[in-house]
Amino acid sequence: MKTKALPGFRDFYPADLALRTHIFRTWRAVASRYGFEEYDGPPLEPLELYTAKSGDEIVGQLYNFTDKGEREIALRPEMTPSLARMVAARSGELRKPIRWFSIPQLFRYERQQRGRLREHFQLNCDLIGEPGPLADTEIVALAIDVMREFGLSSSDVKVRLSDRRILNALLSSFALTEVQASGVYAWLDKQGRGDNAASLHRLKELGVDNEVTQFLQGMAKIKELPALQRLLAERKVPASASLEEVVHTLGAMGLGDFVEIDLGVVRGLAYYTGVVFELFDAGRTLRAVCGGGRYDSLLDALGGVQMPAVGFGMGDVVLAELLKDKGLVPGEISSIDVFLAFITQEDLPQVLSLGHKLRDAGLKVEYALNPQAVGKQLKLADARQARLAAVVGPDERARGEIVIKDLGTGSQETVPIESSVDMIKARIHG
Amino acid sequence: MKTKALPGFRDFYPADLALRTHIFRTWRAVASRYGFEEYDGPPLEPLELYTAKSGDEIVGQLYNFTDKGEREIALRPEMTPSLARMVAARSGELRKPIRWFSIPQLFRYERQQRGRLREHFQLNCDLIGEPGPLADTEIVALAIDVMREFGLSSSDVKVRLSDRRILNALLSSFALTEVQASGVYAWLDKQGRGDNAASLHRLKELGVDNEVTQFLQGMAKIKELPALQRLLAERKVPASASLEEVVHTLGAMGLGDFVEIDLGVVRGLAYYTGVVFELFDAGRTLRAVCGGGRYDSLLDALGGVQMPAVGFGMGDVVLAELLKDKGLVPGEISSIDVFLAFITQEDLPQVLSLGHKLRDAGLKVEYALNPQAVGKQLKLADARQARLAAVVGPDERARGEIVIKDLGTGSQETVPIESSVDMIKARIHG
Repeated sequence: MKTKALPGFRDFYPADLALRTHIFRTWRAVASRYGFEEYDGPPLEPLELYTAKSGDEIVGQLYNFTDKGEREIALRPEMTPSLARMVAARSGELRKPIRWFSIPQLFRYERQQRGRLREHFQLNCDLIGEPGPLADTEIVALAIDVMREFGLSSSDVKVRLSDRRILNALLSSFALTEVQASGVYAWLDKQGRGDNAASLHRLKELGVDNEVTQFLQGMAKIKELPALQRLLAERKVPASASLEEVVHTLGAMGLGDFVEIDLGVVRGLAYYTGVVFELFDAGRTLRAVCGGGRYDSLLDALGGVQMPAVGFGMGDVVLAELLKDKGLVPGEISSIDVFLAFITQEDLPQVLSLGHKLRDAGLKVEYALNPQAVGKQLKLADARQARLAAVVGPDERARGEIVIKDLGTGSQETVPIESSVDMIKARIHG
Repeated sequence: MKTKALPGFRDFYPADLALRTHIFRTWRAVASRYGFEEYDGPPLEPLELYTAKSGDEIVGQLYNFTDKGEREIALRPEMTPSLARMVAARSGELRKPIRWFSIPQLFRYERQQRGRLREHFQLNCDLIGEPGPLADTEIVALAIDVMREFGLSSSDVKVRLSDRRILNALLSSFALTEVQASGVYAWLDKQGRGDNAASLHRLKELGVDNEVTQFLQGMAKIKELPALQRLLAERKVPASASLEEVVHTLGAMGLGDFVEIDLGVVRGLAYYTGVVFELFDAGRTLRAVCGGGRYDSLLDALGGVQMPAVGFGMGDVVLAELLKDKGLVPGEISSIDVFLAFITQEDLPQVLSLGHKLRDAGLKVEYALNPQAVGKQLKLADARQARLAAVVGPDERARGEIVIKDLGTGSQETVPIESSVDMIKARIHG
């Protein structure tokens, strides 16, 4: 019988899991510096938690089924509905602003494409209960600092910031039909991905005025606040004080180099209500690493509590590709500190005793699990990339000694067995 | 709309998740000292991965369904089938012995009982490719050291060891029918749980000879090797060299006080082939914390590779109950290192800049996200259990200074802004 993993699902062998651990550890470290606390919900939820917000169309993308108690349930495709449920259940007790993060595994039954997965892990950071733009700044800064902690600089990644309200106001300053407006959104969404010509042609087909198209092309090129302010003044559209404050406060944090204005950041129309952002590799060869923004009406719709909120999601898949592209995946580290070898069966009790003391001291220890030639034991030590080997034999035992060998330099020394734990600890730690 | 979590599924609010993190961190720390590497598989697997071994009866306990591609799939109820699949797929490349661990979330659709969950997390440790009893010792010692790392001693928990082969041999030394033998297994399984009388009565009903019952009662009381050896000699049943070596080598490691012989440890009959063990709280007020043993035929049956293996599973639910009973749940720790307060809006840029530097230095930093009275800001600092507060105001800014207040002792000092990052780091770290 040769059962394989389901298509779109990953096996994490130790080397794969080491990268996942590196990603999770970095996520947790940066989130906790921002005072965010970790939470989690169940991976399985009632189906209605997702259909209530998104309607029945979302069911086509879900892993959903009927359980043995006739409940309609689904594997979670996103975290926000669970978050809304949990916050709503304790909205009175929770001190605002709520700063929470989670690292759920999420599931979508997407049509299988090459390299497209049906599960991924996603860092979710949400700041709830604070309507002001400084909360947006915290969220964007957190996303940027995650990138910095991985070793990425402002020449590697950029945050593209917009405010949904500006785009809406600009588009309604032209007399566009609904179909034309959605064509414009689609065209904006394509900007920076190279297939510009086709969607420009589409705008023409929709009868969008040439002047409007030229305006949009100019608008899409804007990357800085002053140019945006001039454009808005020209169209008599009010500026976004939120967006301006987010840009200025990110600057005060020293993160200005990471930030660009980009009105082409559209994101889920039904979801976001204010500042929105996406984080991309600077060359835009990959999909977005992270996206988010302010969603002030969603917790009410999902959980029945009126609370302003801002947050983002960052998946592990595109991020891992980016880290690989930039050579930022940590190299294999020695998995074993000390390998203990024994010459005769009578040496084994001393190996077990010493090994256990070293493990109690927090060191990573391995030894052969059956009697075999010392040379063979040391081969296993090499394969495990052990830093030290300690050899116990009858002669050394008689003298109350042990031989310690540095497997990197090849140097070796003989030390009294009583001081061997301390000696080995000193060799490993310093 | 008020959707609740599904029955049997847990929401992990930050305080719950902190305990989970403590458990996972301890599991990972101890496993890695034994040279174990972490792996993971998908939470969703083809149904046949479970029915191939356990037959169709297991389906009654699974979360199983048909996906949109007409595949029969199930949420994983245990980790070993995924492990077998993964090891089989790379059996040639993997260096033996394979020392692997995983912390999967597992799912069973059990009939809902009070407090019974339908999901739990389980530490799985497996040592594959080594048939000798020293591998069994490693696995049992790892389980014991996990307990010790949580602060539990040999007066809190005991490992009960047996060897499936001894029990089989003893029972076949009596002329029991198959029905009688399974009655004996059931009776053994009940030992130590108090409902002795009913299952004794059941043995009588099955026509088990009084002499045999008396023998079994004596056998069930045995807790040490010498008594076991006498009993086996009496019945002319060969001793278990494996069991004896496991007991002796655990003694050499200094773990002898944790270990008892208990032939009542039965466990899954179709699964284990040699030494088996269970880890209980010493008072046996809870279910088993951990169980495992040697399963030398299972990887062949599941994955088509003939490799000896020994391992255990330890769930988070009973363990958490035990830690709570023993007062070993870590107390709430200050979630924030430094809270930054500002007096006027003009002080904000300095708060943002200082806050970001402190976060870059690895400290946990929070500040108010909108202008408010300093008193209100400091209330939030208290609610977050911040250790230090730093206050930036116009006068201090004019003098290039900042006020740092220790929220534990109430003492405060004024320091130059240039040295504030170093001063705050020093206060927090030492």
